[in-house]
Amino acid sequence: MSKAEQLLQALGYDNGQKLLMIHADDAGLSHSENQATIDALKRGLVNSYSIMVPCPWFYEIAEFALKYPNFDCGVHLTLTCEWNSYKFGPVLGQKEVPSLVDAQGYFFKSRNEVLNKAKPDELKKELCAQIDRAISFGLKPSHLDSHMYTLGASHEFLALYREVGKLYQLPVMLNSKLITEVSGNKTAETALENEVMIDHLYLGNFKDFENGRLSDYYANSLKKLQPGLNMILIHTAYDNHEMRAITKNHPNFGAAWRQIDFDFFTSDQCENLIKEQKIQMVSWTAIKNLIYP
Amino acid sequence: MSKAEQLLQALGYDNGQKLLMIHADDAGLSHSENQATIDALKRGLVNSYSIMVPCPWFYEIAEFALKYPNFDCGVHLTLTCEWNSYKFGPVLGQKEVPSLVDAQGYFFKSRNEVLNKAKPDELKKELCAQIDRAISFGLKPSHLDSHMYTLGASHEFLALYREVGKLYQLPVMLNSKLITEVSGNKTAETALENEVMIDHLYLGNFKDFENGRLSDYYANSLKKLQPGLNMILIHTAYDNHEMRAITKNHPNFGAAWRQIDFDFFTSDQCENLIKEQKIQMVSWTAIKNLIYP
Repeated sequence: MSKAEQLLQALGYDNGQKLLMIHADDAGLSHSENQATIDALKRGLVNSYSIMVPCPWFYEIAEFALKYPNFDCGVHLTLTCEWNSYKFGPVLGQKEVPSLVDAQGYFFKSRNEVLNKAKPDELKKELCAQIDRAISFGLKPSHLDSHMYTLGASHEFLALYREVGKLYQLPVMLNSKLITEVSGNKTAETALENEVMIDHLYLGNFKDFENGRLSDYYANSLKKLQPGLNMILIHTAYDNHEMRAITKNHPNFGAAWRQIDFDFFTSDQCENLIKEQKIQMVSWTAIKNLIYP
Repeated sequence: MSKAEQLLQALGYDNGQKLLMIHADDAGLSHSENQATIDALKRGLVNSYSIMVPCPWFYEIAEFALKYPNFDCGVHLTLTCEWNSYKFGPVLGQKEVPSLVDAQGYFFKSRNEVLNKAKPDELKKELCAQIDRAISFGLKPSHLDSHMYTLGASHEFLALYREVGKLYQLPVMLNSKLITEVSGNKTAETALENEVMIDHLYLGNFKDFENGRLSDYYANSLKKLQPGLNMILIHTAYDNHEMRAITKNHPNFGAAWRQIDFDFFTSDQCENLIKEQKIQMVSWTAIKNLIYP
């Protein structure tokens, strides 16, 4: 029996059931991201989110997480800063993890730079420091995932990501197709002990965004959802002064995109589709309870 | 002859002349602060500003500073983070300068905490790291000043501040009354070699803000300006979503206050007063050229 099947059984569902998590990444990035994520969670369709510990607005979202422990809240392990004028770096600082930073002490912009330069021991140290800082705030993370899925970029990174998950007894977000996309490695990954693979991952692409079809993509994803464990990965923020400045010259996952994510995943259309399609929402907490009972 | 008199002479002015610098602190703090500061500088009345290197929006304002080297741009040496939900810490990181941070690795909120906990060697290392980072970006600082004037809080801090100024051959912002206020030390400070005292410093107070009289205070300051070297210290930002969130539950120097600063120091009223009162604007660069020729 696959882990997804076990999960279905453990949750009391048939094998044909469509399980779904709607997950908002990048909380803590900005005030705009925080407020939209909080709003979306409270409205009830987005049911999971993860926090970027090294970002300046971490504190604000951590306060929310402490006050509302009912929502799944993961640590969005962060090793890159993709923005042009808004910068952050490792929790441990430039001196402690020099292989993780550029000449100015900030995270690299791309996965590839991290892949080429990061030393595994410094990488592990920084990942643990991010989780430790979340825990020291009193947060009880439900899961780990990886910003820009940098930790899927190589066998070595992936092994480290899984190792850190085991160390903290937290499920890590894994999807075979995403790993292939990010690493170029075509061998399908499967779940090991204490792991669950996301069977089907839905993430908007730039072409759909450019053509004004991002909402259609989301609606179609819900309509065509497969049995098994599904995840829609989104980024909720308001398209305002702050967010436009952060995502300047970076329309891919930019401010306008994030506003669309917010609008769709707080809409009646989305709510109705979930009902019509008899989709069963599932949380990281349920998965965590299954694999780390 | 006093340094201020020397300065007047060097600049070709009479002793009775009123010299003024309108200085905007806290650039780099936020996008709102950056945009309002840039706007105010370009409009021409605010003629000097200083940058907080450890803040996430440092990069954006540093890009501006590189493009517009005609404006005085100082390093606003930062050892505190006074805000409730928006946090930043030392450039060097928690491990390198543990005496400068709270349990979560952020700067302390108050001057007093820094005074009680900071080790002088760590403090000096962090100050130098902030200046070095600015220089490594290609900036050519015109001066140094101190966020919340923390470096005026004790004899030892003040000596360190002056020492760092000499080390980098940069004027440091000194005002005897402000030092007394911050340190409680009633002995008047005087300028040493390579130093200039600001004769009269104007900084809005909370009572005037609360009573809606902050603009009046600024107008009156301009009307009553004394001969010698004067400085009006302001904080220009827009009273928007981002800035209100940063300054939440902190109306003292909060978002509304900073909007008033922006509005007054870009107003015709301010421009006319400067003309009517025959006030001569002076820059940190002129002072720097005088004391480090």
